[in-house]
Amino acid sequence: MPNDLLSMTLTPGRRRPQRFAPRSHAMSDVLDRPAGAATAPGRYELVDCDVHPIMRGGMGDLRPHLSRGAQRRLGLDDRRSLSTVGHREAVSVPRNMLYVNPSGVLRDDARAPDGSSPGSDPAFTARQLLDGNGIDRAVLIGGEVLGLGALPDPDAAAMIAAAYNDWLAATWLSADERFRGYVVVGAQDPQLAAQEIRRSAQDQRFVGVLLPLTNILMGQRHYYPIYEAAAELGLPVAVHPNSGEGIFRTSPPMAGGTPTYYVEWHTGLSQVFQANVISLVCHGVFERFPRLKVVITEGGLGWIPDVMWRLDKNVRGLRDEVPWMKRLPSEYLVDHVRFTSQPMPEPRRRAHLHTLLEIAQAERTLMFSSDYPHWDFDDPRHVLTTLPEGMRDRVKALNAIETYGDRL
Amino acid sequence: MPNDLLSMTLTPGRRRPQRFAPRSHAMSDVLDRPAGAATAPGRYELVDCDVHPIMRGGMGDLRPHLSRGAQRRLGLDDRRSLSTVGHREAVSVPRNMLYVNPSGVLRDDARAPDGSSPGSDPAFTARQLLDGNGIDRAVLIGGEVLGLGALPDPDAAAMIAAAYNDWLAATWLSADERFRGYVVVGAQDPQLAAQEIRRSAQDQRFVGVLLPLTNILMGQRHYYPIYEAAAELGLPVAVHPNSGEGIFRTSPPMAGGTPTYYVEWHTGLSQVFQANVISLVCHGVFERFPRLKVVITEGGLGWIPDVMWRLDKNVRGLRDEVPWMKRLPSEYLVDHVRFTSQPMPEPRRRAHLHTLLEIAQAERTLMFSSDYPHWDFDDPRHVLTTLPEGMRDRVKALNAIETYGDRL
Repeated sequence: MPNDLLSMTLTPGRRRPQRFAPRSHAMSDVLDRPAGAATAPGRYELVDCDVHPIMRGGMGDLRPHLSRGAQRRLGLDDRRSLSTVGHREAVSVPRNMLYVNPSGVLRDDARAPDGSSPGSDPAFTARQLLDGNGIDRAVLIGGEVLGLGALPDPDAAAMIAAAYNDWLAATWLSADERFRGYVVVGAQDPQLAAQEIRRSAQDQRFVGVLLPLTNILMGQRHYYPIYEAAAELGLPVAVHPNSGEGIFRTSPPMAGGTPTYYVEWHTGLSQVFQANVISLVCHGVFERFPRLKVVITEGGLGWIPDVMWRLDKNVRGLRDEVPWMKRLPSEYLVDHVRFTSQPMPEPRRRAHLHTLLEIAQAERTLMFSSDYPHWDFDDPRHVLTTLPEGMRDRVKALNAIETYGDRL
Repeated sequence: MPNDLLSMTLTPGRRRPQRFAPRSHAMSDVLDRPAGAATAPGRYELVDCDVHPIMRGGMGDLRPHLSRGAQRRLGLDDRRSLSTVGHREAVSVPRNMLYVNPSGVLRDDARAPDGSSPGSDPAFTARQLLDGNGIDRAVLIGGEVLGLGALPDPDAAAMIAAAYNDWLAATWLSADERFRGYVVVGAQDPQLAAQEIRRSAQDQRFVGVLLPLTNILMGQRHYYPIYEAAAELGLPVAVHPNSGEGIFRTSPPMAGGTPTYYVEWHTGLSQVFQANVISLVCHGVFERFPRLKVVITEGGLGWIPDVMWRLDKNVRGLRDEVPWMKRLPSEYLVDHVRFTSQPMPEPRRRAHLHTLLEIAQAERTLMFSSDYPHWDFDDPRHVLTTLPEGMRDRVKALNAIETYGDRL
C-alpha cells in the first residue's frame, strides 16, 4: 500500500464515505459518527478483542437467569435424574467434540486460584491478562455458546442466549470495568435474535453481537433482522470458530469433506470465514446495511488477499448476477469487515507479513486479540512488535475504538 | 403367520438353510451350529438385550486402560490444563448434543447408592434390574461410545474402543456373572476394528460386536472386514441409536433434513435403521457372510412390514441391479436381522400389535430389552404380557440364546 494511502486512512476526523467510487478506501461508516470519546485517539492503549470467559460450573450456571419453565424445558432444573457425570445437564451446546488437541485447549497457568478451570475467575483474568499486559479493554466471547447455532430448536437456542447474556452481565461485566461483552444470539430464529439484541444492548457494556454460525451462509436473507438490529444500534456482528460451524447441521467444516485431525481442522478453519465473507459481499449485505460491521474473530488473515482478488476479478465479469454491488468487493471488505489478529501469521520473512498486512489494509481492518486463555494465546508483547510501526496504534486500539464505538 | 409356519420355526434342532428357495423361512445359520448349552431351551428364563453401563467418571475412567502415549494423544493424561468444567477431557465422544429431553434421559431411581449417576454402579444395577426382574443375562451396550463413529480420526476411535472394552471387562463384566458385553469398534478403520474384535473376543463374556454408526450405510464394502471377523467368531453385530448417526459427519438423522425437537428425532430415529437394513440386504451382505447376524437395538418395530414389502416388491422388478440376491429380501431379514423389543409399540388395539409381530415373524426376530436405566425403560412384567403367549419364551430368552450362542 502506498504511503499516501496509509497516511490518509490514519488521518483523524470524519469523512463521508465515497460511494460507488472504485478503490475509494473511504473511511468507514462507523467513523461517520459524531466525534466523541470513542474516536478520540489515545483513549485506550491496548484493546483485546478475543478473550474467553469460561463458565465455572458449566451450563448449570445459567439457572438463576432462567424461568422455572425454561429451566424445565432445557433440563436445567434441579431434578436429580438430569445430573449425571458426562451428562451434567440435559441441555448442552455442541462444542468441539470431533477433534482432540493433544496439547489441551486452555493455558494451565490461567487456572483460577481455587483450582477451577483456566479462565473461569474474572478477578484472576483481570490481574493476569489485563494488569499483566496493560490491556485497557477486553471484549469477551463466550466459549460455551459458540456452538449455539447447531441446536435445531430455535426456542431453546433463544432461551440459552438470553440467559447467557444475563449471566455475563451479572458475573464478568460486573467484575471489572475493563470487560466488555457481545450479545450472543440464536440465529435459528432471526426475529427472536433481533429482540434479544435490542433487549440486552440496553446494557451499554455490550459492544457487539456474537453470531454463532449455522449452516446458512452469512449473506442469506435469513440473517437480515439480526443485521438490521445490530446496524441500528451501531453494534458490530462478530463470528468465531468452534469447529461446529454447520457440521452438526450437516455441512462439513472444510470444503469437500470433513477433516480427520485437529491440525487439519485448525489449519482449514479459515475456509468457513472465507465462505462467509464472500457470501456477505456478494449478497449485497453491506449495501442494504451500510452501517453494519462484521468482526471475523480468530478466522486468520493470510487468505484475505486471495479472496479480495478473486472477488474483484469475478465481479467484473459477473456483475449482472449481483447488480446490487455498487463498488468493488474489496472495498466492502475493507470498509465493513474487521479481523482480529490471533493467530498472527508467522512467515519466515517479516517482509512477507508486512506485504500481507498492506494488501489486507490492516491499518484499517486489523484489531489485536490474544485468545486468552486458549492454548495458542498470542502475547501482545511479542505479536505487536511484528507489525509495521506505522500501524501499531491502530491495531492495538484505534481500530477497535472505531469498530465498537462509544460503548467500548 | 400361519400356525404351521410358527410351529416350524419353534421346532428345536438343526436344519440346513434352503438357499435360493423363495419364502423358505429356513432356520437361520446361527441355528446351524453344533447343539449345546446355547441352544438348550430353558437355559435362561429372561435375557435383557439392551442395558447401559454408565461411566462413573466419564471418559477419564479409561486412563488405566490406555498407554501413556495414547493418554497423551487423547488428552486423557493428567496434565492439569486439560481438565476443566465442561471440558473434562480433551477427548469426548459425541453423544446426543442436539436434542433436549425435558424429562431427562436417566431413571432417577436407578441412581447409585453413593449418589453417582444412575446406572453407574454394577452391583446396584444387578440388584435393581436383574434380581428385581428375574433377568438371567443382561447384554451391556456402552452409552458413552455410541457416538464413536462420529470421530474423524480412525486411530483415536480405535484407541478409545480398545480401552473401553478393557474397562468394561475389568469393571462390569467382572462384577456379576450375569453381565455380558459387546466389543465396541471404531468402524472408521475396518481392519483395526477386525483386529479389535479378535483381540477382545478372546474374553468369552463378549457376546457380540457393537458398531457405532458412521455416515456410511451398513451394506457398503467398507464394513466387510468387520463382518468377516464377527461372522468367523459367531458374534452378532449390533447397532443402537444415539442421535449422532452420521450427523457429525454430515448426514442428517432423518431423510430430507434435520429434525428440530427431541420428540421428532426420537420418533424418526428408526429411519436410520430402516436405511441400514435396506442397505445390508440390497448389497448382498448376508450372501457374502452367511453366518452374520445383525441386532437392531432400540430401532423400533413398526416399520418392518413396510420395508419387507417394499423390498420384496422392488427386487422382483429390479433383480438385475442386485444379481447377488438369491432369495427374497424379507427372507434375509428374518434369517439374519434381530430386533430388540424396547420401545415396544403400543397401539390402541392389542390385535394390531399381534398382526405386526406376526408379519415381522417376531417369534424368530424379536428379543426382549429394557433399555435400563433410560427414561423410557420397558418393564418386562408389563411388556411381555402384551405379546401372544405362543412367542413369549422365544422373545424372553430363546431368540437371544440362538443369537448370542454359547457365550451368553
